[in-house]
Amino acid sequence: MTEKTYTVTGMTCDHCVRSVIEEVSALDGVTGVLVDLPTGEVTVAGDTEVGVAEVRAAVEEAGYQLTA
Amino acid sequence: MTEKTYTVTGMTCDHCVRSVIEEVSALDGVTGVLVDLPTGEVTVAGDTEVGVAEVRAAVEEAGYQLTA
Repeated sequence: MTEKTYTVTGMTCDHCVRSVIEEVSALDGVTGVLVDLPTGEVTVAGDTEVGVAEVRAAVEEAGYQLTA
Repeated sequence: MTEKTYTVTGMTCDHCVRSVIEEVSALDGVTGVLVDLPTGEVTVAGDTEVGVAEVRAAVEEAGYQLTA
């Protein structure tokens, strides 16, 4: 299993958190998503490493921005 | 943040994993869901502790069973 943490800006509440989890968890190979709302840290766990481009697209689809 | 691990039976593939993540992450206060498909372990992270009854209902809604 691999795990990578990104920083997402724009999330303000639990609904934002759920939107991000929903979009990111729909990516191929993702087995877990953990969001820390205060810091904007989003940790993505997967069977294999999930590409940053795919994570970025999913975060943007949810309405937020990936900054790192 | 609190974190609790449950065992879920019946998941066989990535689509099962996503269904569980989707349903469980929709519960109030949940900020992360991590699923280990081989063992059936589902870890739920939250701002506050999420009730086992709510987690069980979400897992069943996804079509699986919570055993522990």
